[in-house]
Amino acid sequence: MNDSQKFLLDETRIPTAWYNIQSDLKEPLAPVLNPGTGQPIGPEDLAPLFPMALIQQEVSTERYIDIPDEVREIYRLWRPSPLFRARRLEKALDTPARIYYKYEGVSPAGSHKPNTAVAQAYYNKQEGITKLTTETGAGQWGSALSMACNFLGMECKVYMVRVSYNQKPYRRAMIETFGGQVVPSPSTETSAGRAILAKDPDCSGSLGIAISEAVEIAAGRPDTNYALGSVLNHVLLHQTVTGIEAMEQMTLAEDDVDVVVACTGGGSNFAGIAFPYIGRKLRGERDVQVIAVEPAACPTLTKGPFAYDFGDTAMMTPLMKMHTLGSSFVPPGFHAGGLRYHGMAPLVSHLVHTGDVTPTSVHQLEAFAAGVQFARTEGIIPAPEANHAVAGAIREAIRCKEEGTSRSILFNLCGHGHLDMQAYTDYFAGKLQDYEYPEAEISMALAGLPAVPK
Amino acid sequence: MNDSQKFLLDETRIPTAWYNIQSDLKEPLAPVLNPGTGQPIGPEDLAPLFPMALIQQEVSTERYIDIPDEVREIYRLWRPSPLFRARRLEKALDTPARIYYKYEGVSPAGSHKPNTAVAQAYYNKQEGITKLTTETGAGQWGSALSMACNFLGMECKVYMVRVSYNQKPYRRAMIETFGGQVVPSPSTETSAGRAILAKDPDCSGSLGIAISEAVEIAAGRPDTNYALGSVLNHVLLHQTVTGIEAMEQMTLAEDDVDVVVACTGGGSNFAGIAFPYIGRKLRGERDVQVIAVEPAACPTLTKGPFAYDFGDTAMMTPLMKMHTLGSSFVPPGFHAGGLRYHGMAPLVSHLVHTGDVTPTSVHQLEAFAAGVQFARTEGIIPAPEANHAVAGAIREAIRCKEEGTSRSILFNLCGHGHLDMQAYTDYFAGKLQDYEYPEAEISMALAGLPAVPK
Repeated sequence: MNDSQKFLLDETRIPTAWYNIQSDLKEPLAPVLNPGTGQPIGPEDLAPLFPMALIQQEVSTERYIDIPDEVREIYRLWRPSPLFRARRLEKALDTPARIYYKYEGVSPAGSHKPNTAVAQAYYNKQEGITKLTTETGAGQWGSALSMACNFLGMECKVYMVRVSYNQKPYRRAMIETFGGQVVPSPSTETSAGRAILAKDPDCSGSLGIAISEAVEIAAGRPDTNYALGSVLNHVLLHQTVTGIEAMEQMTLAEDDVDVVVACTGGGSNFAGIAFPYIGRKLRGERDVQVIAVEPAACPTLTKGPFAYDFGDTAMMTPLMKMHTLGSSFVPPGFHAGGLRYHGMAPLVSHLVHTGDVTPTSVHQLEAFAAGVQFARTEGIIPAPEANHAVAGAIREAIRCKEEGTSRSILFNLCGHGHLDMQAYTDYFAGKLQDYEYPEAEISMALAGLPAVPK
Repeated sequence: MNDSQKFLLDETRIPTAWYNIQSDLKEPLAPVLNPGTGQPIGPEDLAPLFPMALIQQEVSTERYIDIPDEVREIYRLWRPSPLFRARRLEKALDTPARIYYKYEGVSPAGSHKPNTAVAQAYYNKQEGITKLTTETGAGQWGSALSMACNFLGMECKVYMVRVSYNQKPYRRAMIETFGGQVVPSPSTETSAGRAILAKDPDCSGSLGIAISEAVEIAAGRPDTNYALGSVLNHVLLHQTVTGIEAMEQMTLAEDDVDVVVACTGGGSNFAGIAFPYIGRKLRGERDVQVIAVEPAACPTLTKGPFAYDFGDTAMMTPLMKMHTLGSSFVPPGFHAGGLRYHGMAPLVSHLVHTGDVTPTSVHQLEAFAAGVQFARTEGIIPAPEANHAVAGAIREAIRCKEEGTSRSILFNLCGHGHLDMQAYTDYFAGKLQDYEYPEAEISMALAGLPAVPK
């Protein structure tokens, strides 16, 4: 085994194709349905918002989809990202496990999100679109799309949930530094926003409202499209550069992976690291255990049914079959803003359903304790979302110690926490708490799951 | 020439020795003097604050000083840092220049400071010290020393200028995440702090006061020493890993450097990248132009005399011969907190005096415009301090265009701006201004330069 601590690839090793797990599924994904008719939607239903190239990727069953040269050219600014062996963390845990992590915080926006933002901006530009709209809550996605649009010479408008807009000025500043325009949502720019402000002028906003505003603008203008940062198949596809690179880096490490761990909000960073490994397993090449770690306060995979539901709180999207807590579920306040989604990517949900992914949940105090232990051993301060992955990896490493087995654990450190340091301050000040499983709220939200017309 | 964009070295290429420019100076450095007697100070004068190994490095004339294995082991977490060719910036400037930058923001604390913090903590630990004290203004140094002490199992106490403590909660959070203790200065923990608070209970603090507090604690306790983040010879020595790595990376790039650019506050990031190149020039091996970029509002090298002065505002330190604006000079408020020092490292000052370094100054609006252009071309958002280096490099690249020459420019991107995004917000909001050269204040401060006893 290679005794290095960092495994680097030069830029010639940036993958030339994304891996499409739909090619290897044992049973196909359930179709996305029109909520009015109950019939599968077609490309024309998505065309007002997305370019045809992405709509095709959404349903493709090709195993590999070429990455355009212009996208790889931008990836060169930070990719391949490094893979580290967490030797100091292993020592602190006194575990026989080998712990590896792929670090996506090296991207200029600080997370894995640019992997798809650049691809989405590129395909939109190819089809003549000059402007993208999106929503952002925690701010990672808005930063990434703003950066991507900047590199491709496109405009970017980000509807930022007003409470985040006020609480996260650093994120706003990053979006603006990359040239994007940030608008607090609800805004007076859209009829959706105006209607809400008419009823509640002090409305602090929600991701659902911000989505409505971004979609309204995109749907109404021929030069403008909408971009989504997670959940959809093409978004997960673009993230697979992470896992493909990791496989090559594990070869450099003269090791292979027994357990893959990642956190799940909408599912994209998880898919990025895990899908190439799951594909290898589905093809019968090598077994792997795959663990999806979600917050206990928003337990989509561990507590939600696998059912058709809307992707947004405003119930405007088509119906997707996924693990869901109900589109009206609002999780209790906790700091990992990127993990607050009521649903889960249909591909990830499907793989949980088929038993290829094992979900688990951690409370936020355990997640922050893990993040601090990680920072004090490995140096990097993880994003609050990534702390869930760290906690999951530590649990597995402790299990190895208890069982006396030496397994190889790979987790995705999907972003740094530099713009989320307030959460660490709150943690040290004892202001964070674990939220009980919000059973009553989840039951109520699940009772409102849509009926699928026959 | 190699057409890559990133030049990476694996961890076996971490330098095994620091480069000591004192070995190559044509005339020796002026001695450090006791302000009372005018006589050169000896090791015993520094022993209450610093370990003997660092005191020896301060005066060594050996060309290479071995880096201890335990220090290199910690460097492995982020070193070697990457060297990039700024191809998108070159294109945006339409310049024939080749622009390279060494990126020190990959360290866990986000700047070059850990290069010396780890070394200083190590040598102190070797001599039985269990705790280090220091001051921090902008917060980069406090973060770095806290991280270093954490990795070496030592305690760290950071006296943080009260106004920064209140305005920069993210920096505080980073110091605490690494396990360091942060105290707003002036504090009630020291007689220096108590005396100031007795007169002015609302005192917002200064770097001078914070130094006094940190030194008082270190001088009074046998298990505690003091650590300084810049200015001193041993600090600059430890930073030379940057330039040594860059030289090897430029070989990978199949190019060499004609112009080195770095920003100067106390002088340490500048020395890190520049000294190995200046050494090569002093030995007659290859010529190089070296540019030190300082803020126009604190023009130490361009406007201050080369004279004996105190290193601190409290006039407690020995006298060092350096470019200085007078130890009582307080620069007007501007955002590059790391570049507000009234003096300059004696080694850097000496090399300006001998004509081996060319100083220049930029106003902050030019610096921020350069930083934004850099972020929009290369992706990375620089620290406000680093923006001065970017501006200096852009000036040189434009000069190349005007002259029709293709020179190779290397600059040190000494840190990222993730914890300084408020400065970008202020810049976009038009709240930043250029400060006129504060001639009257500088004249007054210079009038107070100490007389050196004969």
